[in-house]
Amino acid sequence: MKFKEVNIGIAGLGQIGGRLYKEILSKKNNIKIKTGVKINIIGISAKNINKKRNFNFNKKIFFKNALDIAKNPKIDIVFELMGFSDGISKKVVETSLKNKKHVITANKALIAKNGESLSLLAEKNKVNLEFEASVGGGIPVLRSIKDGLSTNKINKVVGILNGTCNYILSKMETSKDTFSNVLKKAQLLGYAEPRNPKFDLNGSDTLSKVRILSSLAFNTKISKNKCLLNGIENIEAEDIEMADSLDYKIKLLGITEIIDNKLFERVHPCLVKKNAYIANVNGVMNAIIIEGSPVGQSILQGEGAGPGPTSSALVSDLLSILRGNIKYPFALPHNKRKSVSPYDKNKYLNSFYLRFLVKDKPGVLSSITKVFTKYKISIKTLVQKPDKKNNKASIIIITHKNSEKNYINLLNNLSKNKFFLKKPTFIRIQKV
Amino acid sequence: MKFKEVNIGIAGLGQIGGRLYKEILSKKNNIKIKTGVKINIIGISAKNINKKRNFNFNKKIFFKNALDIAKNPKIDIVFELMGFSDGISKKVVETSLKNKKHVITANKALIAKNGESLSLLAEKNKVNLEFEASVGGGIPVLRSIKDGLSTNKINKVVGILNGTCNYILSKMETSKDTFSNVLKKAQLLGYAEPRNPKFDLNGSDTLSKVRILSSLAFNTKISKNKCLLNGIENIEAEDIEMADSLDYKIKLLGITEIIDNKLFERVHPCLVKKNAYIANVNGVMNAIIIEGSPVGQSILQGEGAGPGPTSSALVSDLLSILRGNIKYPFALPHNKRKSVSPYDKNKYLNSFYLRFLVKDKPGVLSSITKVFTKYKISIKTLVQKPDKKNNKASIIIITHKNSEKNYINLLNNLSKNKFFLKKPTFIRIQKV
Repeated sequence: MKFKEVNIGIAGLGQIGGRLYKEILSKKNNIKIKTGVKINIIGISAKNINKKRNFNFNKKIFFKNALDIAKNPKIDIVFELMGFSDGISKKVVETSLKNKKHVITANKALIAKNGESLSLLAEKNKVNLEFEASVGGGIPVLRSIKDGLSTNKINKVVGILNGTCNYILSKMETSKDTFSNVLKKAQLLGYAEPRNPKFDLNGSDTLSKVRILSSLAFNTKISKNKCLLNGIENIEAEDIEMADSLDYKIKLLGITEIIDNKLFERVHPCLVKKNAYIANVNGVMNAIIIEGSPVGQSILQGEGAGPGPTSSALVSDLLSILRGNIKYPFALPHNKRKSVSPYDKNKYLNSFYLRFLVKDKPGVLSSITKVFTKYKISIKTLVQKPDKKNNKASIIIITHKNSEKNYINLLNNLSKNKFFLKKPTFIRIQKV
Repeated sequence: MKFKEVNIGIAGLGQIGGRLYKEILSKKNNIKIKTGVKINIIGISAKNINKKRNFNFNKKIFFKNALDIAKNPKIDIVFELMGFSDGISKKVVETSLKNKKHVITANKALIAKNGESLSLLAEKNKVNLEFEASVGGGIPVLRSIKDGLSTNKINKVVGILNGTCNYILSKMETSKDTFSNVLKKAQLLGYAEPRNPKFDLNGSDTLSKVRILSSLAFNTKISKNKCLLNGIENIEAEDIEMADSLDYKIKLLGITEIIDNKLFERVHPCLVKKNAYIANVNGVMNAIIIEGSPVGQSILQGEGAGPGPTSSALVSDLLSILRGNIKYPFALPHNKRKSVSPYDKNKYLNSFYLRFLVKDKPGVLSSITKVFTKYKISIKTLVQKPDKKNNKASIIIITHKNSEKNYINLLNNLSKNKFFLKKPTFIRIQKV
C-alpha cells in the first residue's frame, strides 16, 4: 500500500507526545518531500485536556478516550505514548491493529511483555508495528539490527540501556556523593522519575530492552524467562571508590547472548576495566555493542532518552511506514522465529567483587575465608580497610572465576555470619 | 515492484566480491525467509577466470566483460565491486541503471565523483542505487542517516573514516616506531594496499566518504569543492610523542559541517584531547559522530573495512532492495537537493600544533617568534628540545586560535627561514 495522504492519531500527550506533536507539525513539508505523502494529525488524546502545555492544539481533535483514536476510521497511523505494559496501552494498540491501523510506540514494557501477540496481530492485519523508540532513545539500534546488520549472525549484545542509572553511577563517581543524594539531583534535573524511579533503578527497564534486543538479534521469540536481575540501589560511594582504585568503573549493563544454543539474558551492575569503551560512556548516554559475523563489533552510542531523541526515533518509524512497505515487526514472520530455552544461570562463570562490613574483631577474616574455601572460590585480591574508631572494618575481595551457584551459596552462608554488620555487597566483573 | 525471484550479477571478484559471493550463497535461505524472495547468482565477472580463489564457481556464469552483466536481460541486480572512480566501474553502473537493473556498490570514489549523474539515472529509471558499503564498512551509517535519523536536522558529522590511517597512527603510538616501518607492517597485515597506498594516506579516500556523508546529512548535492586536505604522510614518531606529553592523540579526521549556510568539508590530521571519545577509537576501527536535532549526538563505531564488514553492508543493501521499495539514492529527489556554496576555508579559526627542526644557533627563536608576531598569531605553549650533539633543536608550538589564512602566511614565511632544517610540521587542534 502506498499512501498519498495519511491521518495520524497520538494517544498520550506527555513530554514525549507533546514533543512529537510539535515535531511532526514542523517537519510536515520535509516529510512530504521525502516520501511524497501529506500528513495530518487528526486525533490526540490525553488524561487532561486543560493541562498547561507549551503548545496549542485544536480542541476539536481532542479525544477523551484514547480508544476512540484506535477506533476512528479516518485515522491510518496511531502513536501509543501512554507507557503502560498492559491496560489501556495494550488495548489501544490491539484495537488499532485490528482496525488495520499502523502503530508506532515507544513503550518497551508493552513490547517486552506483549510483543508476541501484538506482532502477530500486526502480521495478520498486514500493518506495521514499529517500536524503534523503545530501546536506546534516538539511537537507531533496532533498525540497524533489522536492516543495516540484517543477515549478520549476531551472538552477543551488551549495552548501557538506562540513562537514569548511568547518570547516577557517573555522577557518584565524579562527585563522590552518596546514592541517595545523587538520585535526588537526578530527579531535580528530570533524569529520574520524581515519584517512582524504581523500574529504572532496579534494572527492570533495562531488562525490557534486553528482551527486545534478544528477540531481534537472535530471531527468537521474546523470552519470558526469569533472568539474573540486579539494580543499582545497593551501590555505595565506597564501591565506586574501591572500583576506581582497582582500575574499574561500575556500570549497569544489559547483556544478552547465545551460549550453547541457549539464551542468556541478564541485567546487573558490572565492574568494567577503566580503559574499556563502555566504561567511558557517561551521564545519560546509552551505548550498545553488537557482536556479529561477518560484520565484527558494531557500536552505537547516543542519547538514550528524553523527548528529543525519542521523537527522532518515532518520526523515523513514521517515515518507514510512509515509504509504504509492510515489514514484520521482528524482521521475520512470527512462525519463523524460534523459541529458545534459557541458559542455566547457575552455571555462569564469573569473577566477583565483594564488599563486607564487619566487626573489627580477631577471627573475622578467617571465618570469612573459611567459607570461600568451602565453596572452592579462590581469592585474587583482598583489601582490608579497618575503621578502628568505630570498631568496624571493610573487607573487599576480588575472586577468581567461579559459578553463579557457588556465589549464591557463599553469600547465603556469609549472611548468617555473626561478624557481619550488614548484607554483603557484590558486583560481577564483566569483560566487555 | 515486488520480487518473487531475482537474479544477481557480481562485477568484480576480488577480496570483497569473493566474500560477497560466498556470503550470498550461505544466506540464501535466510534471505528467502526474511523477504520471501528467492535469489540466484547468474553472472560473475573478473579480470582473470583462472586466478586461484578459495571458492569454486560454475564457469558457465562467468563473463569476461563486466559490461555483459550490465546488459544481460536476465539479471535484476548488479553488484559493482571493481572500485574505479570512472572507466569500467562507471560504465557498468550506468548501463545497468539504464537497463533498469538495481545497482549496489561499495565504490566511494565512484559515488563521490559521479554520484549525481548516477543517482539521477537511477531515479529516472525507477531503480535503486545503493552504496552503504562505501562509507564506514560494516557500520550502517548511511542507512542511519537516511532512515533512523531522517528528519533530524544534522549540522555536523565528524569521523575516523579510514582504517589504514587509523591503524598506522595507533600503531605508531603504541610501538613508538616510525611511519615507514609501521606502514610496512600495515601492508604485510593487509591493512594497507601493498602497491599504492597513496589514496588512503593522503586523505583522498576519507574525502570521498566525507562528500557522500555531507550530501546525505545536509540534503545537498555532492560537492566538487577543493577542500582542506592533508594526509598523514608527514607525521613522525616525534609528533606522536609530543602530542602524548601534551595530553593529545593524533587522528586523521574527516569533518563536514554547515557554517553560516555554507558547506565546510575538510580532511586533515587532528590533535584531539586524550579523553575525547574519538581519541580512543584505535586500530582499523572507524567511528562517526553525527550531531543532529532533536536527536543530539549519535555515535556509530565498527570495523571500517575488510571483506566481512563490507559484505555485511552489501547484503543489507540487497535486502533493502528485495523488500521492494524504490528509494531515492540520496533520500530526496534529485531536484530537491540543494547546491550549497563552500565555506571560505581561509576564515576557519583554529589552534595549531607546529613543529620546527632548526639549527641550534643564537637568534633562531627570536627569528621565529617575530613571524608569529607579524601575523598576530599568539603562542600558548612553546617547547624547545635541543639536540646539542647534532647542533639541532626541535621547537614545538601550540597556538591560540587564528585564521587558516594567517597560518598559511606564517608557514610560507617560515619556509624561507634560513635556520630551518626541514619543512615545518603542522597539525590542527580539533575539539570533538
